[in-house]
Amino acid sequence: MKIAVLGTGNVGMTIGAKLVETGHQVMMGSRTADNEKAVSFSKRFPDRASHGTFSDAAAFAELIFNCTAGIGSLEALQQAGPSLGNKIIIDVSNPLDFSQGMPPTLTISNTDSLGEQIQKTFPSSRVVKTLNTMWCGLMVNPGLLKEEHNVFLSGNDASAKESVKKLLYTFGWKESQIIDLGDISTARGTEMYLPLWLRIYSATSNGAFNIRIVS
Amino acid sequence: MKIAVLGTGNVGMTIGAKLVETGHQVMMGSRTADNEKAVSFSKRFPDRASHGTFSDAAAFAELIFNCTAGIGSLEALQQAGPSLGNKIIIDVSNPLDFSQGMPPTLTISNTDSLGEQIQKTFPSSRVVKTLNTMWCGLMVNPGLLKEEHNVFLSGNDASAKESVKKLLYTFGWKESQIIDLGDISTARGTEMYLPLWLRIYSATSNGAFNIRIVS
Repeated sequence: MKIAVLGTGNVGMTIGAKLVETGHQVMMGSRTADNEKAVSFSKRFPDRASHGTFSDAAAFAELIFNCTAGIGSLEALQQAGPSLGNKIIIDVSNPLDFSQGMPPTLTISNTDSLGEQIQKTFPSSRVVKTLNTMWCGLMVNPGLLKEEHNVFLSGNDASAKESVKKLLYTFGWKESQIIDLGDISTARGTEMYLPLWLRIYSATSNGAFNIRIVS
Repeated sequence: MKIAVLGTGNVGMTIGAKLVETGHQVMMGSRTADNEKAVSFSKRFPDRASHGTFSDAAAFAELIFNCTAGIGSLEALQQAGPSLGNKIIIDVSNPLDFSQGMPPTLTISNTDSLGEQIQKTFPSSRVVKTLNTMWCGLMVNPGLLKEEHNVFLSGNDASAKESVKKLLYTFGWKESQIIDLGDISTARGTEMYLPLWLRIYSATSNGAFNIRIVS
């Protein structure tokens, strides 16, 4: 599959590498066409990876990962706007504001979420929020932890969520680990979990954790 | 120990009953001295339970549980104000606003929390936020779930947190299940988890769950 990964931070690089390893053609998208990290990624996987602007990557792809920092996600997606069409946007970002120091606060919360704002801004696209509740190393390798743990899905389009589930299986997630929370407004739940994630991380000095729903 | 339970909803009644069963003297506090549920609670445990106003209960007690609805917690505690002194207030409430329908939003979040507001309003008291991340049946009976799961502590006073831990042990919690997140500002994390709790509850139709930190 042709997949765009928007954002060249740790999350984008980790997801991009996993997509290449699992056989996809990946275009890394960034603000500028010659982003240093994206260029080096293309060199690392010359057969399967390329790079370009957000717009180039979105035009190339059948499916789009939003791995940009949440505070800049809408702007990044707006640059890709005309090419988003009715494509699936897998949104793994969180609206974290680090400008006032640590721990960050959320720029959007409670009565709205970044997932919803993306869906509202691009009504033809099919936004699925997922993977935003954990460190990127676990996103693409859930088996790093010996016990089962969970990942959530939020989105309005059932078939888009099915497609995303299939992609999650290729990342190592089992069906029993995936919890479909409902429509995109449920992204408020997963985004607002971040403040707890940050406090657990701070208290335990370990980011390689995730939550398991015990019932 | 003499313990006040402020609030006569499900949470207050569940915690009050557990405290009586584990040998404490409990006074249920409510807006009015003759609250029907509090009267019936006293009749159920004539040797160990009594009831009165928020102020009566706080004056009676060495330790205070805030089990009022979050939206009314500050007002309830203000009624008890002069009797709070430097007592431990175990705050299990969440600032949920149901006025716009389901799911509720939070009245305080992101840059503040109800736990912090209570601590700021009563600076001599020692507020410990805990147990607010689960259904009350699990608060007092964590063994209902076969697997281990976690409970969090937030508070500024280390010795108060130690006292609360000891009380949690008598509820059935093991040391390995209790995570001290840090000072009272970390209550932002546990209170902001509620929107995720509500979506998981809605998606699974089961409130008898909790999260386990897997690492």
